[in-house]
Amino acid sequence: MYKVDLNSDLGESFGRYTIGNDDKIIPLISSANIACGFHASDPVVMTTAIEQTKEAGIQIGAHPGFPDLMGFGRRNLAVSPAEAKAYTLYQISALGGMCKAHNMRLQHVKPHGALYNMAAKDYELSKAICEAIKSYDPEIIVMGLSGSEIIRAAKDLGLKAASEVFADRAYEEDGTLVNRRKEGAVIKDENEAIARVIRMIKEQKVTTITGKDISIQADSVCVHGDGEKALLFVEKIRKAMAEEGITISPLKDICN
Amino acid sequence: MYKVDLNSDLGESFGRYTIGNDDKIIPLISSANIACGFHASDPVVMTTAIEQTKEAGIQIGAHPGFPDLMGFGRRNLAVSPAEAKAYTLYQISALGGMCKAHNMRLQHVKPHGALYNMAAKDYELSKAICEAIKSYDPEIIVMGLSGSEIIRAAKDLGLKAASEVFADRAYEEDGTLVNRRKEGAVIKDENEAIARVIRMIKEQKVTTITGKDISIQADSVCVHGDGEKALLFVEKIRKAMAEEGITISPLKDICN
Amino acid sequence: MYKVDLNSDLGESFGRYTIGNDDKIIPLISSANIACGFHASDPVVMTTAIEQTKEAGIQIGAHPGFPDLMGFGRRNLAVSPAEAKAYTLYQISALGGMCKAHNMRLQHVKPHGALYNMAAKDYELSKAICEAIKSYDPEIIVMGLSGSEIIRAAKDLGLKAASEVFADRAYEEDGTLVNRRKEGAVIKDENEAIARVIRMIKEQKVTTITGKDISIQADSVCVHGDGEKALLFVEKIRKAMAEEGITISPLKDICN
Amino acid sequence: MYKVDLNSDLGESFGRYTIGNDDKIIPLISSANIACGFHASDPVVMTTAIEQTKEAGIQIGAHPGFPDLMGFGRRNLAVSPAEAKAYTLYQISALGGMCKAHNMRLQHVKPHGALYNMAAKDYELSKAICEAIKSYDPEIIVMGLSGSEIIRAAKDLGLKAASEVFADRAYEEDGTLVNRRKEGAVIKDENEAIARVIRMIKEQKVTTITGKDISIQADSVCVHGDGEKALLFVEKIRKAMAEEGITISPLKDICN
Repeated sequence: MYKVDLNSDLGESFGRYTIGNDDKIIPLISSANIACGFHASDPVVMTTAIEQTKEAGIQIGAHPGFPDLMGFGRRNLAVSPAEAKAYTLYQISALGGMCKAHNMRLQHVKPHGALYNMAAKDYELSKAICEAIKSYDPEIIVMGLSGSEIIRAAKDLGLKAASEVFADRAYEEDGTLVNRRKEGAVIKDENEAIARVIRMIKEQKVTTITGKDISIQADSVCVHGDGEKALLFVEKIRKAMAEEGITISPLKDICN
Repeated sequence: MYKVDLNSDLGESFGRYTIGNDDKIIPLISSANIACGFHASDPVVMTTAIEQTKEAGIQIGAHPGFPDLMGFGRRNLAVSPAEAKAYTLYQISALGGMCKAHNMRLQHVKPHGALYNMAAKDYELSKAICEAIKSYDPEIIVMGLSGSEIIRAAKDLGLKAASEVFADRAYEEDGTLVNRRKEGAVIKDENEAIARVIRMIKEQKVTTITGKDISIQADSVCVHGDGEKALLFVEKIRKAMAEEGITISPLKDICN
Repeated sequence: MYKVDLNSDLGESFGRYTIGNDDKIIPLISSANIACGFHASDPVVMTTAIEQTKEAGIQIGAHPGFPDLMGFGRRNLAVSPAEAKAYTLYQISALGGMCKAHNMRLQHVKPHGALYNMAAKDYELSKAICEAIKSYDPEIIVMGLSGSEIIRAAKDLGLKAASEVFADRAYEEDGTLVNRRKEGAVIKDENEAIARVIRMIKEQKVTTITGKDISIQADSVCVHGDGEKALLFVEKIRKAMAEEGITISPLKDICN
Repeated sequence: MYKVDLNSDLGESFGRYTIGNDDKIIPLISSANIACGFHASDPVVMTTAIEQTKEAGIQIGAHPGFPDLMGFGRRNLAVSPAEAKAYTLYQISALGGMCKAHNMRLQHVKPHGALYNMAAKDYELSKAICEAIKSYDPEIIVMGLSGSEIIRAAKDLGLKAASEVFADRAYEEDGTLVNRRKEGAVIKDENEAIARVIRMIKEQKVTTITGKDISIQADSVCVHGDGEKALLFVEKIRKAMAEEGITISPLKDICN
């Protein structure tokens, strides 16, 4: 039997600013990545996100990012490993404690945006992030780009690692995502995207942008809730998975 | 036998900015209030403060404040009780989780600056702060101005409360601190200040600015480490206490 | 002939966060209050707002606020007059210089949110704000609540003052706005709101919540662009004004 | 006759946090680079810095940086050219307007920290910064690393450019600074450092770390005021320059 986790970024609003449709995406996913106040979110927003997630019975992960609200954590920032470690520990602690106050527990940690992308390629940075996670709670699952440095670092530190894949993104031969600026980086045909992700789950294979087949591990699929079209696509993915006998399950039932 | 806690604010540096002499005040106190990143401090600074405090064997408390780094959390900010609760929970969770990663545990929470002063007079605000503390860990001691609303709120919620006194500040008849802008608000004579605090501890009495004696509870005395003069004053207090048979003990040995 | 300015707050987005429908409200107003990066906006957002406003041929004013992005500048913050002066000068300089780079010039300054409300009641705070404006450019018009302390301070300093009125808000006998928490604070009937604002312009009178008529100066009417309903209301106001022979003109043609 | 400008970074304090000895370095320099509130400084600090600089009769330049107070603007941040342009224009406008309010005028703009270093190597980034400066005031002098991309971009845009040199830093053959992590990056012998800078001014030559002589333009020398040792070094430089017939003059008398 095939199992996969569907994850989405939540709790990204800030003060009077709203991003996303948290209430609409929550029923469609099994794991939520909640922003922790650095690149997005604030304590009031986080409280609401935890309450909504708890009520829906899905799992919570921390989504730590760079201290760059103006750039939504999407711009590379040259932090040292010590800074990355401290920033990660601070953010997962903040969200983790708020979960504890709601009788919830962090299932996973998924770095956000530029931190995610930089960690995928930088073992030292990944190690710093994973050390922070381990020092907080060694049971937490580290989620990162399938086949990337953070998966390696997590395993080296004895942590559980969840390999994340993207339905709508093309892959290079080395398993990294094709840069968005390159032609063909985004798979625009929804059916093709869904077929690709199902193959990743069932066959652990994906065809790269060069036409070659490579191995890929798919523990979790990243989905988005911003906009009607995105929500419909998630429903389509869910339907296809049901038809293919793939069960949507939280990470803790997959990476154990 | 008399016992009292000496507390001081630590970990108030930020990035390349330094405030205080943490390494010099730590050996002189029993409890440290560590800033949590809103009015002061950052994750790297907090890490260092926790390590120094742990090594010295003293207790850690969280020192949550308003999200006003530019004003160092000293300016009243009209937050709602829900905001105060969320901000407090976020900050104590962040520090608490970082302590956990260092095998330490939060002993107490003392609101900072304007949040401290506003809570002292506002039961609803105090209640919001105490609810946040209770939801995170009901064993944590709430430290606040002796005789103030936050002591009342903490007790109403079944939390342990630590009454804080100030050696160098004059008191009004209702037990509040005389406003700094008023003549006589600060006790400038060091010997008088020390005599007053010793009387608070031994007799639970203080003479107000109007000349009247009032009752006062003194579980902890606030001291400062900024500057040579401040450090010498703390040493003088310690010496006087030793002579008077007052043992300096962390809050957890006092409020239990 | 009657003339009035219609003003609206613009440029309130921040990074990836969007607030308002700037492109839809711009064609309906004569003056735009652009946020300056403290309570809202960032340099990229400000650039877009200036370009849109310039293209539409309407006037620009600075909308300085408290350094409280998390609270959108809507929470009272106990700044000193020196801080208020420096914060105002910084913000109007930032926007003013960006306007200069686009061959535009600041027509007016309208404090935002809690700063607006606090200044309305506090002469010293208003004076600090007005001193900042005067030091930057004594030709700039100060916009504030009709009949309030900031109008008085602006005039005392020899600055031009624009009295702002609200179509949908009830007034107290002293000319202040009825607190939003009070019953009847908001005029919900659109026709009544429009009739009231037209009377303010033509007769310089308004009926207070107690039923008494008081004098009121109406140089500018505040309108909002957030949501379809708000935009329709502004169109209704414009139509009613046209029928009543009231010309919509920028402040510089009114306060001279 | 030889002339050179001595510049130093000022106004880097923030709220209750203090950095530098502005009052002690001001009498020793001819041009001050004042931080603008992104990587350091706040409107109150900027006001004081302008007042001190004005009283001393030295020239003011803007010192714009990345929006990274936690990292003091020293960490590379992957901003787009459009963001760099808007951030620069915002910051120089803010300081420029505050100068105007004090009857002062911006003499120059020198990017700070990581922005300075990134611009030195990136023509597109430099061009964006220079476009912002030109749009604000085409008379402003652009200060940057001697021989670097920003000097080239400034000249291409028709702006005056000031070439900055460092007394205590080793140079590569291509005129860039030797990376601080490399052995020999910092010239530790004060007399050697001074001799090098005098040769740069008089002969427009410097010996690189590889032992080769290269051409270098020295319009301004960067000096520091943090600490007693740094201040004494500046006095030593001034004395040596006087002996060598080099006049210390503000940039506007050099780059015209």
